[in-house]
Amino acid sequence: MSKKIVLALAALAVSASALTAHAQQTLKPEQAIKYRQSAYSYIKWNMDRIKANVEGANYNKSEVIQAANAISAIANSGMGALYTPGSDKDAGGVKTYVKPEFFTKQQEAARLAQNFIKEATELAKVAASGNAAAVKSQYGKLGGTCKACHDDFKVRN
Amino acid sequence: MSKKIVLALAALAVSASALTAHAQQTLKPEQAIKYRQSAYSYIKWNMDRIKANVEGANYNKSEVIQAANAISAIANSGMGALYTPGSDKDAGGVKTYVKPEFFTKQQEAARLAQNFIKEATELAKVAASGNAAAVKSQYGKLGGTCKACHDDFKVRN
Repeated sequence: MSKKIVLALAALAVSASALTAHAQQTLKPEQAIKYRQSAYSYIKWNMDRIKANVEGANYNKSEVIQAANAISAIANSGMGALYTPGSDKDAGGVKTYVKPEFFTKQQEAARLAQNFIKEATELAKVAASGNAAAVKSQYGKLGGTCKACHDDFKVRN
Repeated sequence: MSKKIVLALAALAVSASALTAHAQQTLKPEQAIKYRQSAYSYIKWNMDRIKANVEGANYNKSEVIQAANAISAIANSGMGALYTPGSDKDAGGVKTYVKPEFFTKQQEAARLAQNFIKEATELAKVAASGNAAAVKSQYGKLGGTCKACHDDFKVRN
């Protein structure tokens, strides 16, 4: 490829990412914090529903599928876009529970996020099988990825 | 079927629904309100992302799929379980924006909820096609189902 074309492509890539950055900048830090907290909150409810099913006397396959699909789709929705510049600290009266290190130790944060996405995706697959024991095991694995990130990057509240 | 068996089955059904009711009662009204608000909040972010894609100069197929899948999975997650007794009014310092009529006009509420679920499910299908014009149209249809419910059952805030 000619040097000219390479430079032109590079310029295009930069302007495309500038556009993306612009789109994300329209989200105020407090909005980004609220939206990501919404995601985790809804995941919590659905984790609790699955827990009740795998630990209780009754296993409702349909409820577990609904819950696991919601968790997986949220995990795979590109939540990383909600960790915008300025949202590393409380903003607009909204408190964040993420430690500032989450924004600086990006490789470690990305690794934990990828583990979370992987196990959430797997949970949705296992839920579809209706095998309660397998769901219980996979629920535990997913919970482990939540805890790993909380241990490193969540302020205790 | 003998009358005895019918009665036994009926008793079983009652105790099963009592168990479900019990499981749901462990959710405090303020928790139910927070969880459902989380769902709507996360849906809002994802609706906004799709809007930016269908109205902007650039269409990011992958982002639209992620957003539409999240909306669809949340819509299909059985959110109705979050409209628990006692959560029809502010509880534990958490304000709800649902009108009490949502709990009494159950047929109308169910109809609107079903429309929402139907169009959200369809949006995820259309998003997978990558056809921006079709996504724009389906986004509009889904937005219509949000508005229909807000008009009837949401307190203006």
